[in-house]
Amino acid sequence: MAKVHNFSAGPCILPQEVFQEAAAAVINFDNLNLSILEISHRSASFVSVMDEARQLVKDLLGVPEGYSVLFLQGGASTGFLMAPYNLLTQNGKAAYVNTGTWAKKAVKEAKRLGNVDVVGSSEDKNYNYIPKGFEVPADADYLHITSNNTIVGTQFKEFPTVNTSLVCDMSSDIFSREVNVADFDVIYAGAQKNLGPAGATVYIVKDEVFNKSGRDIPEMLNYATHASKDSMFNTPPVYSTYVSMLNMRYMMKNGGVAGMQKKAEERAGLLYDEIDNNPLFEGTAAKEDRSNMNATFVLTDESVKDKFDAMWNAAGISGLKGHRSVGGYRASMYNALPIESVQVLVDVMKKLKG
Amino acid sequence: MAKVHNFSAGPCILPQEVFQEAAAAVINFDNLNLSILEISHRSASFVSVMDEARQLVKDLLGVPEGYSVLFLQGGASTGFLMAPYNLLTQNGKAAYVNTGTWAKKAVKEAKRLGNVDVVGSSEDKNYNYIPKGFEVPADADYLHITSNNTIVGTQFKEFPTVNTSLVCDMSSDIFSREVNVADFDVIYAGAQKNLGPAGATVYIVKDEVFNKSGRDIPEMLNYATHASKDSMFNTPPVYSTYVSMLNMRYMMKNGGVAGMQKKAEERAGLLYDEIDNNPLFEGTAAKEDRSNMNATFVLTDESVKDKFDAMWNAAGISGLKGHRSVGGYRASMYNALPIESVQVLVDVMKKLKG
Repeated sequence: MAKVHNFSAGPCILPQEVFQEAAAAVINFDNLNLSILEISHRSASFVSVMDEARQLVKDLLGVPEGYSVLFLQGGASTGFLMAPYNLLTQNGKAAYVNTGTWAKKAVKEAKRLGNVDVVGSSEDKNYNYIPKGFEVPADADYLHITSNNTIVGTQFKEFPTVNTSLVCDMSSDIFSREVNVADFDVIYAGAQKNLGPAGATVYIVKDEVFNKSGRDIPEMLNYATHASKDSMFNTPPVYSTYVSMLNMRYMMKNGGVAGMQKKAEERAGLLYDEIDNNPLFEGTAAKEDRSNMNATFVLTDESVKDKFDAMWNAAGISGLKGHRSVGGYRASMYNALPIESVQVLVDVMKKLKG
Repeated sequence: MAKVHNFSAGPCILPQEVFQEAAAAVINFDNLNLSILEISHRSASFVSVMDEARQLVKDLLGVPEGYSVLFLQGGASTGFLMAPYNLLTQNGKAAYVNTGTWAKKAVKEAKRLGNVDVVGSSEDKNYNYIPKGFEVPADADYLHITSNNTIVGTQFKEFPTVNTSLVCDMSSDIFSREVNVADFDVIYAGAQKNLGPAGATVYIVKDEVFNKSGRDIPEMLNYATHASKDSMFNTPPVYSTYVSMLNMRYMMKNGGVAGMQKKAEERAGLLYDEIDNNPLFEGTAAKEDRSNMNATFVLTDESVKDKFDAMWNAAGISGLKGHRSVGGYRASMYNALPIESVQVLVDVMKKLKG
């Protein structure tokens, strides 16, 4: 069958060798003659997977002492709820930067529990840039940001410096860039971009902020509960955690996060160069805030749309349609996307110009 | 390799043909030349999986009109929280039956949100029976029960009749017994027993109870939010939902829930007969409340423990250790466990007697 160039926005491409090992474990895991889908999460074999997954997050991102790594369920959408439950005091306030759909959802959940100051927003220009120079109130319990915005294709290139807890939804660019974890109190990310399949969510939480809110936190939403049980308070997402672990092993063997970042910059550079130099295309995000993960662009001449769509489809490209709120096209270039796939897309764009 | 007889309490055994198909889809799903782990959950191929999964639940359990079926994340532990959020009014009260560990956790979460009446409990005898004849206050917003108690090996053989919403955590016996769904307003179940791998949780909710609590419910905990989006409010647990769908197809082809119930009764009958007739063993649950899913038993003569343990290990039996709170042994006999595996265990027990 023809090769597929998978530009899907997530769940998204993972390395082929990860798929091979992941498929084999569904039949016979760890030489137990049992499927990974039928073993107890309390078995030695799975406890070892969970431990290795948590350690690999620490190794890949250089997580300092005093932080806990958790593999939970519920996606970033549950993370939106956990942030205020754990950090927002009863009469305190939280600061949020509104960079689009996901940030707005995070704000909405926080508002149910208390006061929210939206300290920066790019809503005025359909979120096509990252707000800068905003001020965070001295008494804010935390500042929440979304590091990469999949729908509009923007990305924080530098993270704000704050005197309170910095909480970051890093769902769509974690493991694609080096970060100084010590600058954050909470990092959380749905697995289904650079980490693994849908169904797992990783949390990196500074132990100091456990129960900072002083609230009576439901067990499943309490960072401390999960940390005290090594992510086994309840049955974890076994298979998603396992495949994430395999993918992190792959990253370790292939240059670590620095290696992933280099590849991300190469892929993005190749595509944005074409967008900027080809008069038929125009990027939709502010240049200095362009995402290395999701490139959003439109045609300058809608009359060639059918031709372009037919061409990239014929080239085996999948998942290029832009989000309905932005229109146009979106090329998601997560860690496992080979640069050859970007070259195929760029070649199609060049050919369209003629 | 030697056959393993998997009596694990969950995640647990699923049919071999399900594993074969589940493994193949990790490499090439739906002839897309893409792994099911890398496709968008919005793709036509996956939307079709989600739709079929929800329809199969309806077909297998005879879900009447006016109910929504959801595939979510978070396990029953999140379900414990969703019940009061959705059904418990601000000044109302909820009734709970305390049948052990899982019921107690459900009570604990409900108490965070409001008043809870524990209307029946078997705590006095270490939960070895199912409370009966309890009264539910006329003004209770709902009654919550746990249909099967994995740790102590008890099971509701008949469900209480109530004049309010009946909410049931059916995690460990759903699809093993015929139930009249119309008697319940909410049924929820972690997938990892009779349905599929860990990571998915199924909800069957009567649409009439949406927002019954009148509370400002966080999106991820709101039945109505997920129902209005056909379980796609956020990225669903793609692979766990897919494998659950495969397993439900298997159940449909193999006699449906009636067929599963017949097999469950045969397996349980075979094992309980041996427990009752072999003087070296004693069941720990009250006979009339014995679970068809989890048989709990102890040795009457602890001096043969090492011998027995060596014998069942040698026979390829896995997962027979009792929960630490009960001790002894627990044979979990979920839908996919062949009766031959139970026969192997019974043969070991007979041989021990000599």
